[in-house]
Amino acid sequence: MSSAERASSTPWANTHAQLAASGDEATADRQDLLDRYQQVRAASLAMTQGWSAEDMALQSMPDASPAKWHLAHTSWFFEALVLRTANPNYVARDERYFYLFNSYYEALGARHPRPQRGLLSRPDLAEVMAYRAHVDAAMADLLGATSPELLANLGDTIVLGLQHEMQHQELMVTDLLHAMSLNPLRPALWPELADAPIRPAICNEGDDLPRALGWISHGGGKVDVGHPGPGFAFDNETPRHTVWLQPFRIADRPVSCGDYLGFVRDSGYRRPDCWLSEAWATIQREGWQAPAYWVLCDDGEFDVFGPAGLTRLDPAAPVSQLSFFEADAYARWAGARLPTEFEWEAAAATSAAVPGDPSGDLATQQPAGQSAGLPGAGQVWEWTGSAYLPYPGFKPWAGAAGEYNGKFMLNQMVLRGGSWATPAAQKRIGYRNFFAPAARWQFSGLRLARDAE
Amino acid sequence: MSSAERASSTPWANTHAQLAASGDEATADRQDLLDRYQQVRAASLAMTQGWSAEDMALQSMPDASPAKWHLAHTSWFFEALVLRTANPNYVARDERYFYLFNSYYEALGARHPRPQRGLLSRPDLAEVMAYRAHVDAAMADLLGATSPELLANLGDTIVLGLQHEMQHQELMVTDLLHAMSLNPLRPALWPELADAPIRPAICNEGDDLPRALGWISHGGGKVDVGHPGPGFAFDNETPRHTVWLQPFRIADRPVSCGDYLGFVRDSGYRRPDCWLSEAWATIQREGWQAPAYWVLCDDGEFDVFGPAGLTRLDPAAPVSQLSFFEADAYARWAGARLPTEFEWEAAAATSAAVPGDPSGDLATQQPAGQSAGLPGAGQVWEWTGSAYLPYPGFKPWAGAAGEYNGKFMLNQMVLRGGSWATPAAQKRIGYRNFFAPAARWQFSGLRLARDAE
Amino acid sequence: MSSAERASSTPWANTHAQLAASGDEATADRQDLLDRYQQVRAASLAMTQGWSAEDMALQSMPDASPAKWHLAHTSWFFEALVLRTANPNYVARDERYFYLFNSYYEALGARHPRPQRGLLSRPDLAEVMAYRAHVDAAMADLLGATSPELLANLGDTIVLGLQHEMQHQELMVTDLLHAMSLNPLRPALWPELADAPIRPAICNEGDDLPRALGWISHGGGKVDVGHPGPGFAFDNETPRHTVWLQPFRIADRPVSCGDYLGFVRDSGYRRPDCWLSEAWATIQREGWQAPAYWVLCDDGEFDVFGPAGLTRLDPAAPVSQLSFFEADAYARWAGARLPTEFEWEAAAATSAAVPGDPSGDLATQQPAGQSAGLPGAGQVWEWTGSAYLPYPGFKPWAGAAGEYNGKFMLNQMVLRGGSWATPAAQKRIGYRNFFAPAARWQFSGLRLARDAE
Amino acid sequence: MSSAERASSTPWANTHAQLAASGDEATADRQDLLDRYQQVRAASLAMTQGWSAEDMALQSMPDASPAKWHLAHTSWFFEALVLRTANPNYVARDERYFYLFNSYYEALGARHPRPQRGLLSRPDLAEVMAYRAHVDAAMADLLGATSPELLANLGDTIVLGLQHEMQHQELMVTDLLHAMSLNPLRPALWPELADAPIRPAICNEGDDLPRALGWISHGGGKVDVGHPGPGFAFDNETPRHTVWLQPFRIADRPVSCGDYLGFVRDSGYRRPDCWLSEAWATIQREGWQAPAYWVLCDDGEFDVFGPAGLTRLDPAAPVSQLSFFEADAYARWAGARLPTEFEWEAAAATSAAVPGDPSGDLATQQPAGQSAGLPGAGQVWEWTGSAYLPYPGFKPWAGAAGEYNGKFMLNQMVLRGGSWATPAAQKRIGYRNFFAPAARWQFSGLRLARDAE
Repeated sequence: MSSAERASSTPWANTHAQLAASGDEATADRQDLLDRYQQVRAASLAMTQGWSAEDMALQSMPDASPAKWHLAHTSWFFEALVLRTANPNYVARDERYFYLFNSYYEALGARHPRPQRGLLSRPDLAEVMAYRAHVDAAMADLLGATSPELLANLGDTIVLGLQHEMQHQELMVTDLLHAMSLNPLRPALWPELADAPIRPAICNEGDDLPRALGWISHGGGKVDVGHPGPGFAFDNETPRHTVWLQPFRIADRPVSCGDYLGFVRDSGYRRPDCWLSEAWATIQREGWQAPAYWVLCDDGEFDVFGPAGLTRLDPAAPVSQLSFFEADAYARWAGARLPTEFEWEAAAATSAAVPGDPSGDLATQQPAGQSAGLPGAGQVWEWTGSAYLPYPGFKPWAGAAGEYNGKFMLNQMVLRGGSWATPAAQKRIGYRNFFAPAARWQFSGLRLARDAE
Repeated sequence: MSSAERASSTPWANTHAQLAASGDEATADRQDLLDRYQQVRAASLAMTQGWSAEDMALQSMPDASPAKWHLAHTSWFFEALVLRTANPNYVARDERYFYLFNSYYEALGARHPRPQRGLLSRPDLAEVMAYRAHVDAAMADLLGATSPELLANLGDTIVLGLQHEMQHQELMVTDLLHAMSLNPLRPALWPELADAPIRPAICNEGDDLPRALGWISHGGGKVDVGHPGPGFAFDNETPRHTVWLQPFRIADRPVSCGDYLGFVRDSGYRRPDCWLSEAWATIQREGWQAPAYWVLCDDGEFDVFGPAGLTRLDPAAPVSQLSFFEADAYARWAGARLPTEFEWEAAAATSAAVPGDPSGDLATQQPAGQSAGLPGAGQVWEWTGSAYLPYPGFKPWAGAAGEYNGKFMLNQMVLRGGSWATPAAQKRIGYRNFFAPAARWQFSGLRLARDAE
Repeated sequence: MSSAERASSTPWANTHAQLAASGDEATADRQDLLDRYQQVRAASLAMTQGWSAEDMALQSMPDASPAKWHLAHTSWFFEALVLRTANPNYVARDERYFYLFNSYYEALGARHPRPQRGLLSRPDLAEVMAYRAHVDAAMADLLGATSPELLANLGDTIVLGLQHEMQHQELMVTDLLHAMSLNPLRPALWPELADAPIRPAICNEGDDLPRALGWISHGGGKVDVGHPGPGFAFDNETPRHTVWLQPFRIADRPVSCGDYLGFVRDSGYRRPDCWLSEAWATIQREGWQAPAYWVLCDDGEFDVFGPAGLTRLDPAAPVSQLSFFEADAYARWAGARLPTEFEWEAAAATSAAVPGDPSGDLATQQPAGQSAGLPGAGQVWEWTGSAYLPYPGFKPWAGAAGEYNGKFMLNQMVLRGGSWATPAAQKRIGYRNFFAPAARWQFSGLRLARDAE
Repeated sequence: MSSAERASSTPWANTHAQLAASGDEATADRQDLLDRYQQVRAASLAMTQGWSAEDMALQSMPDASPAKWHLAHTSWFFEALVLRTANPNYVARDERYFYLFNSYYEALGARHPRPQRGLLSRPDLAEVMAYRAHVDAAMADLLGATSPELLANLGDTIVLGLQHEMQHQELMVTDLLHAMSLNPLRPALWPELADAPIRPAICNEGDDLPRALGWISHGGGKVDVGHPGPGFAFDNETPRHTVWLQPFRIADRPVSCGDYLGFVRDSGYRRPDCWLSEAWATIQREGWQAPAYWVLCDDGEFDVFGPAGLTRLDPAAPVSQLSFFEADAYARWAGARLPTEFEWEAAAATSAAVPGDPSGDLATQQPAGQSAGLPGAGQVWEWTGSAYLPYPGFKPWAGAAGEYNGKFMLNQMVLRGGSWATPAAQKRIGYRNFFAPAARWQFSGLRLARDAE
């Protein structure tokens, strides 16, 4: 089953699947914008079906936030960046939410400390839902009443708000999954997904084991990277610019759990030569001996915790919930390395590219099992060897939105691709995801690369 | 309004008030034991009226536990120490709860880490309620079916379990109040209590300000302290033994918020000579400038956070939520000191004592406004200058219950008396409450003492 | 070899041995006071023979200080509390030392942070020696020129300064020993002490193994404790007052390394029932498996690190460098308990007392191998079960000296007796040493006690 | 005075100046290699003139090491990587030093914990000197006796050892300077340097203020970067490869203290919009308000701590001891950015390049005040906006030397150029220095860059 197919097994499948990619021309269209707004907002709620108010209040670490907070903060985003700006008569449901649900925007004033998001039993979930409804109503009013000129302006911010909310949709899953991973009962977020493993994408048809790794060659040289436009992109994907690549090879599928098990069984976590210095210090200090969600059973085999709860390790599934430290160590052990983000992008774009459509999303271009630029992409986020830094000529957006991406450009590594939990509209070839190298609660794996022979 | 009167304004007032003190003869009485069991268990639930599932899942610091956890753990206590022992056919609702809801009993095996109690969204509140009902049914069966001989044995453990649950009743309030104190919205746990301030106990009739402090003299000498029996007492209250006291004086009421405000206004938190060395280091490091729940307002006055939410500081209310550090510093500033736990007990027992009833509860003996051994006692827990250490000849209970008290006898200070949130059955003169000196989330205040002139 | 005999093997033996106890009448005697001043000051330097400037600059943890700092701080004490007060024309060698070498006296202003004492390569050792000489010369001038009236006043502070310096003499040894214990080369501070083990004190004459433990009985009842006067005592030893003791028994020798080895071999460090809750958490977190200076060798036996370097565990030597946690756990394992400080004092005073001399020092009263109040006392400090708290009626000294003891009366436990490294003049029966319960770098062991049968 | 001139005022000036850059042909020359070995080794000792044994034992933080340790570790390097390999009969002075002075080479076994290097009073400085002499004698023997074939092999490792030692020479200065900066006496390492400020390099001749900033334009495009060979380079400078640059401008001098003062005075440390998110969190947490060695005086002006002690801020001196956080924030405040390491290298190489000599050192090519590729380079290390990552095709050296650079390629930023304390032989255009972004104890400043207009 491919990532797309798995996604279709989730509670939010119907809503999510309808999400269209953002298009420039669309933003001028009042009704289309409202439709998309409502789709995205509905998808957020659809994802939380089956979760209790108690589930949605959990914060398991400072880096993760309660689902309830995600629902509130994404509403806050529209309130703070759109409604307060565009409608001087806007009446907030509660003025204190402006403080309570600001995430990290210094330009918008003080905010509730991030590590204490899990302490907010009040406002409760019902009130947060009412807050969402309040914002949705105000947005519908605004979109209905705004002049075309103003709408043209607002459109960009609204589209940004929708992209922002889609990012939080995936975080709702990974954050709550992390909390569940610390519960000794190992509850399943979606037990029905136990019947929807992600496998065929890296297997031959009808096969249960991943196919042998193949290599795709790229000749290097002058390559253009970054958002080609038109259509939405985050500021960190721009400007499009030229880089020079050396010839390289890149694997034709992500590393599987079976592959990674070989590393674990080969004492990979006890061999300092496989690890970067900071990585080695980390695994020693934290006692890491396998991926975060792997559980060594009494029979010597591993179970893996995931959205369906604890299930036996599936050798054909892409390895996930891996830190950069572990991805990098695996690659070294395998005699390979991680691709740079531009190698990844060049390889993905080369074969996927069709004239006039260099920016289509990965899911669309790479049906499971078909030959494509990077077969298997979109199953798990793939760590690259690139630090998250500004592109040459990078300009942050104006205003508070300028804090969206730029200020995090340090000590983080880029991931490319997307996971089964990533909304399809965000699986752009040029999309730059990023996390600190020790982060291991995302759907993050890797794909190997090598210098050309 | 006295502490007892305030308690009568709470949602659980009816249930709580009916709780009888445990009596030895009673334990032989099957029906009486069952009645008391059901009263205490019902009181726990009554207290949580008005709290949401989200409220009851909060853990604001490692020292505090979610209300849901308290409800489960007190059930676990009966399951682990009574049902599993007395009924070989007992079927647990979920075997994993034996691990999940053990607090700190090493003899009963491993347990869920204390700082992660707030991460357990599953089992949810409804399931915890079902778990309580399961245990209650099994206890009723057991009490109905047990032979008189066995019951005599079990009775002591069941009474212990009820005393244990009453302790957790107060902790449910202080723990959740602490979580609420960190919520910027400062939600009121019981808004109706705003009309039930604790004041008259240290005021003259009809007066809004505390009466001037008076001093009660005690001649010292040979005094017997500790539980006089019969009736229930914790092991740490025994054995009764002799101590020798120097003559001393003790104040006739607790320190009020108005008194303490004088210390704050006199730069008390910036004068190292008032503080113990470790206390001074703590307030510097933590930035303490007033009691934990005092909030300095724009007008220069203080609001105080409590069960009724944020209200203006009431000069006549006993100061509360004080650490030992602060109680000790205030006493030094006031030219006095804290009483030792035996001075406190001797003073309380002397005048309260009536022939044949040395162990009655404080609330009964000291109606508000009447002259009594220690007028005002029972409003707030009163820090003493005594370290929490074993009495001479102390023997911990046999078995797992031996871990109840003894192993905490280090680096903690004794508090005496009780607060408005303390079940009446626990306001024994000999009761030894204890907390680390930095703890400031209890209903803890102080009463001054001095050497005899 | 007794503690006194071992002390006589040290480099400072001659100087140290001459130190007379302080006597009231002596303080009026100008020449006698100067003699004693010079003896104590010389002893400090004598102890450091064989230590390099590099050794004396080491600070291995915030609780320990460099030997160089001890030498400077004890000089600062005379400068700050005597010279600056008594001589308005006193010219400091360097005004900045007033800040640099203040230990913890808030009343005397700001000071260099304690954890950074090891970063002061300047002033270097030679300059610190010059600073000592400067202070010594000024003190000699002062003592020579002061009027008898003024001298009577100053005398008390000078005697305090000498007692203070003697305390630091022992700390110089334990602090540097701690630093050496962290050096993988395990250097010997005094290799010559390898031939001077402390053993006979708890052995029968000519025997290599400790004699079987005997018990001394005490009938309890009304007992006077605290400094009986005359002669010097710290404020925390006063006032003398009455306590009431229950009958008890106390062991006739300290616990030996051989005894303690039995606990270690019996899995003592893996049995939670032996430990207080905080102790158990500490040994888990820190990985303690034996006393701090014990080193498990390849042959399964233990070496012990000490002033003579690493030597094979001597079963007859008193166990040392023990935390309160470990002393308490051992006692519980042995079916006994620690004595309270008043039980210890009562037992020591009872048999040691001779008419008219209740305050003589332990070493004098208890020649090795002779029957005495507490045979074996003075070998190692003995942890008691008493928290370090003020005596009833305790009054701190006036002025800055008031910070000497009182402000540390929290979360520390009392030790009694003295070690081979304790100056004889401080081995008073009433002397109260104190350390936090986790401290394990002192010459600290224990003696068992039990309730009367 | 230029950086080179200042270096000539240091105690080690004569020795240091003679150090020749390593050249390939030279390694075959036995005598030349020995000469250079002895020069570098002598320079290390020359630098420590005027430092006491106490100074040289200081470790002020885990990232810094005692000068004594540096002297021992650089000897260990020759022992571990050359002598033990090349001479099977080599007899170590002390086998335990193999453990004690290993820095971070996992392949060479366990090692003394880095944060405890300051606790090694033994071996003392004299013994470390003897250890150096022992290694030097063995190296002289080896170089005298080795066959030409073996020498050809060994030569590379010996040259590496010399480059390694030169790196530690600069660290000896910055590490000890850091320790001195924490000493309230602010001792001067080299008081004589007070008369040798680094200024003219960014001033016009005879002027006391820095000249206005000028901009050097570069057209971008295809550029080759990395070590061009021949001659020594670290593995992280290779392989030489092609990159594509966008057109850019780069400043013609480093930022001066006067420039940076403008940022400080403009509330730069209180404006979140100037800082990366992690940087802002750091300065809030640590309380940074100015560069690490700047001291705000009572008159509102700044003194700056440096090798000559505390001196008044010199507006014309290049700002130094800056973290990447601060360098980046300044650039943003100034409406500019940091150059990437390849922009820096391209700009430096372009104008400095003379046919056939693309790899000459900066100091040689850029006499003070002359027009050169990057005027002012070599005064302070210059932070770039590039993460420290492997070059395409990077291969770590074989064996233990493979741990030299590669395993640190994460969460660090590249610095280019060199400081007045950098040995001339290391001021290669291609040299990649690297530190964590919060590091602020190096001679590290910045140079501005901008996109082309």
